Amino acid sequence: VISRVGGGAAPATGADPAVEWDGSRLRILDQTLLPFREEVIELRDAGEVAAAIRRLAVRGAPLIGVAAAYGMAMAARDTAGDMAALDQAADALRGARPTAANLAWAVQRVVAAARAAPTGGVPAAALAEAAAIEAEEEAASAALATRGADLLAGARRILTHCNTGALAAGGQGTALAVVSALAERGPVEVTVCETRPLLQGARLTVWELRRRGIAHRLIVDAAAAGLIARGEIDAVLVGCDRVAANGDVANKVGTYGHALAARAAGIPMVVACPTSSIDLSLATGAQIPIEERPGEEVLRAAGEVVTLPDTLCSNPAFDVTPAELVTALVTERGIAAPPTGERLAALLDAP
Amino acid sequence: VISRVGGGAAPATGADPAVEWDGSRLRILDQTLLPFREEVIELRDAGEVAAAIRRLAVRGAPLIGVAAAYGMAMAARDTAGDMAALDQAADALRGARPTAANLAWAVQRVVAAARAAPTGGVPAAALAEAAAIEAEEEAASAALATRGADLLAGARRILTHCNTGALAAGGQGTALAVVSALAERGPVEVTVCETRPLLQGARLTVWELRRRGIAHRLIVDAAAAGLIARGEIDAVLVGCDRVAANGDVANKVGTYGHALAARAAGIPMVVACPTSSIDLSLATGAQIPIEERPGEEVLRAAGEVVTLPDTLCSNPAFDVTPAELVTALVTERGIAAPPTGERLAALLDAP
Repeated sequence: VISRVGGGAAPATGADPAVEWDGSRLRILDQTLLPFREEVIELRDAGEVAAAIRRLAVRGAPLIGVAAAYGMAMAARDTAGDMAALDQAADALRGARPTAANLAWAVQRVVAAARAAPTGGVPAAALAEAAAIEAEEEAASAALATRGADLLAGARRILTHCNTGALAAGGQGTALAVVSALAERGPVEVTVCETRPLLQGARLTVWELRRRGIAHRLIVDAAAAGLIARGEIDAVLVGCDRVAANGDVANKVGTYGHALAARAAGIPMVVACPTSSIDLSLATGAQIPIEERPGEEVLRAAGEVVTLPDTLCSNPAFDVTPAELVTALVTERGIAAPPTGERLAALLDAP
Repeated sequence: VISRVGGGAAPATGADPAVEWDGSRLRILDQTLLPFREEVIELRDAGEVAAAIRRLAVRGAPLIGVAAAYGMAMAARDTAGDMAALDQAADALRGARPTAANLAWAVQRVVAAARAAPTGGVPAAALAEAAAIEAEEEAASAALATRGADLLAGARRILTHCNTGALAAGGQGTALAVVSALAERGPVEVTVCETRPLLQGARLTVWELRRRGIAHRLIVDAAAAGLIARGEIDAVLVGCDRVAANGDVANKVGTYGHALAARAAGIPMVVACPTSSIDLSLATGAQIPIEERPGEEVLRAAGEVVTLPDTLCSNPAFDVTPAELVTALVTERGIAAPPTGERLAALLDAP
């Protein structure tokens, strides 16, 4: 553990990367401690990567894809290319969180690269594939940021949910990469939904926007719809965890409500993600597995108990926004506005 | 201060009333400490009542009307019927919280009773009016509960927001009085939105439902829309702070989002309140003053800091649900389904 206390005061340029391969281990910034403490932890094998994903030390659909790919690379190294053992590691990583498409996608890519490798070459092939995924996701972030900023030209007051920055995806992230690109062109003010229960908006997005020097204000999630109705927001801009073949989008719980409010107010609801989040194998959002997390997360807020401790809680971590409420899906390969099966298929076929 | 620790374990029958006039002081259960501590505090004059309303030690639109009425009675006593001094007390009480219609309504009723009283009879007249308001609100709760349960016959899975029980209104409350009436007729399961920032759902509604022996589960506010879309809720049932002449409804921030989700899913969105919450002087919800509370409430959850302490926050305490999204407004005098100007006026004219 390499720790540095006092994250908020650290200069923007001194930020540790959210994930970093050091040649033998994956170093990650433990996101459960932000914004109060910056602590880098080292994950030494696939099991530690799966555990870190499960406890949300590393999170964000594209980023857990990258982390899992390196987990697979470590598994390939540690099992000396034994494909049965590698499949076991793949199952454990895939099972860490069910909703994000990127996790299974990245694991599958490394498995395929390993299968295609010559005997003895599996570890090197797996590591090369992980590095390729990381590089592609970083490039995707830059490309979708430009496309998103073009699409949203003129939008100044952006509402976002959860965290979609460098802590969630390669490069500058997904929706927050678009925000940064917009901020380079003119003034932007971001309304950040705190994102109960785990407060990724309050903890992570506020921390990233402060580092980037982008104006922002924090609200409780329940305030979003009213502010949108009052005309205080120009566009809702979020990331996503999985896009079904018909354009339905699973994202952090609360997104669907923001989409309803955006539609009622006639403002755009824009979803930004790399194409690795698109899963054509699921016909509609109803088939996307929605992770139910422990009720304990609802019972506590910022670590403090909010009610009588043995209260029954329900804690779905995601919800599904139907394609018809999504104004545009912005990816590195192009924009589907609105997302339809045809447009998504075309995006994935594009070079 | 009369305190009793361990609220959750206390028997249902042993509950202190939310407000109680003891002949010279108003005793209130300090709601800021629930559900972890039951502490009764004594308010000895109008200023202490206003302060208690401001800091939400007593809350809920109908209940702050009752509390303010007793505050006015104490002011009439303490100023020996000096009408100028009584008007000052009225201003201070009205200013304590701007959104609830009941507060200004109750204060005005006591002022009118005082004005109509003979010289020397002002204190007695003011106290009699406060007691009348309390009795009327208690009767209203019972009447609207029966009407609401008739309307919602067959609805088993109810989603509610904030607190609308005996801690918010006379008798058994507003929406929670309807829930109790439904529960007497058959099984009911209440999905309780925690109601950030101050967690009245988690702290107060959970506490009340447990005492009443009604099944419930707690969710974060952002989960409501997705659960409604998934078919897990039969009806949304809330209270309100003010109804405009056209039927628009101001209620705790987050209500509007639930109303949008209910409409999208085709389930009823029912609002329960005494007619004292109806304000025909405001044409539409756009004219209802929406209280902006300190950002500090967003920066903390259950007392714990959620992000970097100097983060800018926006904290509207209420939002407005347009009349067209309200399936029915349930009052003690009848139901307006949906609420229209004509129906509201007819309700207020009813005997």
